[in-house]
Amino acid sequence: MSTKMQVLDHGYVELYDTMGGDLSVVNAARQSFGKASETIQDNEKGLINFLMRERHGTPFEMVVFTINAKVPIFVMREWIRHRIGSFNEYSGRYTKMIEDFYVPAEMNIRTQTGKPGAYKFEPVDTNKAKTVRAAMTVFSRSAWWLYEALLKFGIAKEVARMVLPVNYYTQFTWTVNLRSLLNFISLRSDEAAMHEIRRYSQTIETLISDVVPVSYNAFVKHGRRAP
Amino acid sequence: MSTKMQVLDHGYVELYDTMGGDLSVVNAARQSFGKASETIQDNEKGLINFLMRERHGTPFEMVVFTINAKVPIFVMREWIRHRIGSFNEYSGRYTKMIEDFYVPAEMNIRTQTGKPGAYKFEPVDTNKAKTVRAAMTVFSRSAWWLYEALLKFGIAKEVARMVLPVNYYTQFTWTVNLRSLLNFISLRSDEAAMHEIRRYSQTIETLISDVVPVSYNAFVKHGRRAP
Amino acid sequence: MSTKMQVLDHGYVELYDTMGGDLSVVNAARQSFGKASETIQDNEKGLINFLMRERHGTPFEMVVFTINAKVPIFVMREWIRHRIGSFNEYSGRYTKMIEDFYVPAEMNIRTQTGKPGAYKFEPVDTNKAKTVRAAMTVFSRSAWWLYEALLKFGIAKEVARMVLPVNYYTQFTWTVNLRSLLNFISLRSDEAAMHEIRRYSQTIETLISDVVPVSYNAFVKHGRRAP
Amino acid sequence: MSTKMQVLDHGYVELYDTMGGDLSVVNAARQSFGKASETIQDNEKGLINFLMRERHGTPFEMVVFTINAKVPIFVMREWIRHRIGSFNEYSGRYTKMIEDFYVPAEMNIRTQTGKPGAYKFEPVDTNKAKTVRAAMTVFSRSAWWLYEALLKFGIAKEVARMVLPVNYYTQFTWTVNLRSLLNFISLRSDEAAMHEIRRYSQTIETLISDVVPVSYNAFVKHGRRAP
Repeated sequence: MSTKMQVLDHGYVELYDTMGGDLSVVNAARQSFGKASETIQDNEKGLINFLMRERHGTPFEMVVFTINAKVPIFVMREWIRHRIGSFNEYSGRYTKMIEDFYVPAEMNIRTQTGKPGAYKFEPVDTNKAKTVRAAMTVFSRSAWWLYEALLKFGIAKEVARMVLPVNYYTQFTWTVNLRSLLNFISLRSDEAAMHEIRRYSQTIETLISDVVPVSYNAFVKHGRRAP
Repeated sequence: MSTKMQVLDHGYVELYDTMGGDLSVVNAARQSFGKASETIQDNEKGLINFLMRERHGTPFEMVVFTINAKVPIFVMREWIRHRIGSFNEYSGRYTKMIEDFYVPAEMNIRTQTGKPGAYKFEPVDTNKAKTVRAAMTVFSRSAWWLYEALLKFGIAKEVARMVLPVNYYTQFTWTVNLRSLLNFISLRSDEAAMHEIRRYSQTIETLISDVVPVSYNAFVKHGRRAP
Repeated sequence: MSTKMQVLDHGYVELYDTMGGDLSVVNAARQSFGKASETIQDNEKGLINFLMRERHGTPFEMVVFTINAKVPIFVMREWIRHRIGSFNEYSGRYTKMIEDFYVPAEMNIRTQTGKPGAYKFEPVDTNKAKTVRAAMTVFSRSAWWLYEALLKFGIAKEVARMVLPVNYYTQFTWTVNLRSLLNFISLRSDEAAMHEIRRYSQTIETLISDVVPVSYNAFVKHGRRAP
Repeated sequence: MSTKMQVLDHGYVELYDTMGGDLSVVNAARQSFGKASETIQDNEKGLINFLMRERHGTPFEMVVFTINAKVPIFVMREWIRHRIGSFNEYSGRYTKMIEDFYVPAEMNIRTQTGKPGAYKFEPVDTNKAKTVRAAMTVFSRSAWWLYEALLKFGIAKEVARMVLPVNYYTQFTWTVNLRSLLNFISLRSDEAAMHEIRRYSQTIETLISDVVPVSYNAFVKHGRRAP
């Protein structure tokens, strides 16, 4: 059931595996193992909406996803703040990496306006954006060149990688339950979130809305806040 | 794939759902999505043993189980101390319950010997055990009688249930990853654990050893301690 | 600074220890160790309100409480569902307990009305309440009598205690950060919560509102929902 | 009671606040609030050793530390994998940063030998080390130059910082209980850990061994593994 979707210039998210679905939420809430629901009818939809609205969160922990993602390091550093879930990240301590950097598209080379607590971001003009992209591309190349030179010089990978900037791509597997994932989406699809992580969050929203359509709709209906 | 096994006089555990297996552990550790292993060979077994021995725990979090269980309340009170995992328990606040109490088998009516920090438990003689079982059975019946009388008297379920003793059976769904489950097994299958929870833990061991045979063997081999 | 307050007939909560306060929240959010704020002025209040409203939750994790509580077992069973925090509970496996049961006051002997999802609870009439209290008191006494008889008979404490009903009092120490505690209060001081746990939650509210007045007011102002 | 110790060229750790100590561990385990121990005698030491050996972990969660640290980003990326605890990190999204990079001392410019699963690290010769240090210093300077140039060009801070390499210093506040901290130390003071994080871990060991000497000694005595 693997579904892989591109995000940013070289990144992606992939829904690799799922356990459970809307029915698991219902049956966990009802705890009537013998006579569990087999289909989602109006009663079941009503129950899911009730659970979401009244913040009965644990039934939503019965659905679990495994997601693979490739993201720039600076995105990973925000992502991993979400502690309820399991991460396995690619490590550059012992493995030779490949050249792979994020450079924002022109429209995402942005400037910041507004005041503390209410910042806004707007694209800079095209010429400026081209210049910045060129500078970031050249700088990323030079970081990579230095990384490889240090390796050739016999320096340990874990030392050589210290020169890689945070726009370098990393990849990881994330196992997370639906409740924790809805909290991630609530915060990271929000317009106050950083552009790059919002792109990932919105893509994950699309992927899971097919797997748990009733729970997802209840989440949207009740203010996009995790139960 | 549901597998239900009886535990104690009226209890059970059931492996209701699973996500992943030994291969998920391997592929999470390797983080090589493109060229993931498809079968468990000697290399993969070696890697799993290495991860277990060196306490690289997160790959074992990629395997997730949903377990249904029916246990006496006093067992549940130990079980729920394990915080990494998700519980949905049957609630008697709004639902009329049924008469269902645990009374230990004769051989489990036990006495305690030894000194603090090193207690041992031994069966009492048969006559004594019969007497104790009879007393517990009668007392459980009288608790149930009072519970029902209070309900008939118009008292709220959440008040009436206060008279039920902790040998009353409850049931719950538990979603837990392999790493956390191995920690549960490490502590609760141990001979220092209370007899009743040990019975559940050992049954779960049997159930999961079929699902993740390589990881389970590595756990046993490296001292039965979770990574 | 220990402050002990009675709850229910024989229960209590006690604020045993605290680390940090409103200033810790501010300084954690600002991360300017060198020039940390030393007093709470309007700027600091504004920041705390901003953090609460925008759900920047981690600064509120810098404040930690240790609370001692004595509660009936059926209250403990709800309390311990809150997984983010540390519990050390009195154990009856090896220690001889004392006779100590909760019997609701007359006005809390209640009946349940309304329909699923919207139940209400109302006191029963005084005569009925007196009868119920008498029945619960007698039954608790008989449970205690049986517990002691089993001990005298040589039965292990961990077996004898199985006959104790869930209105028996237990006690525990709870170490919990402010963010997790606000989530507890949000759910357990709510009028949908069970009467007995609500009483504990409201008492804890009183205790901590003195320790973190600005954070507590921000919590109340922004909908009594944890960040 | 703040104690700040330098680590690496510009980093540090500081024990900023503590709640509890060895006595809290003892009293939590005993749960005898009325007659709590007031001093640590042989009995108390014996109990702490028993708890550590038998893996009764929750009493060690009663002691909580707040630690401030300044570390290179690549160290932070390992540190934050420890999920049980609270982090507040300095953010470069909205704040202008200062020039602050880690360059390993000559003796820590290392090469990697051995085979997978058993790597060793050894210093390279002095001339090579000098060359590498010079290259890393120059590269860090050029990264900083580009960061500042992008800011002057009107680019948002959250975009400009993408060019900063992972040897850039960040700082954070960490609130963590003793049990989780011992797990951190168990893994990160180990000789298999990366040199830079081991330096921080060992420094923290020194700081806390004064605060909880009995618990710390028990940890060392029983195999340096968290309970």
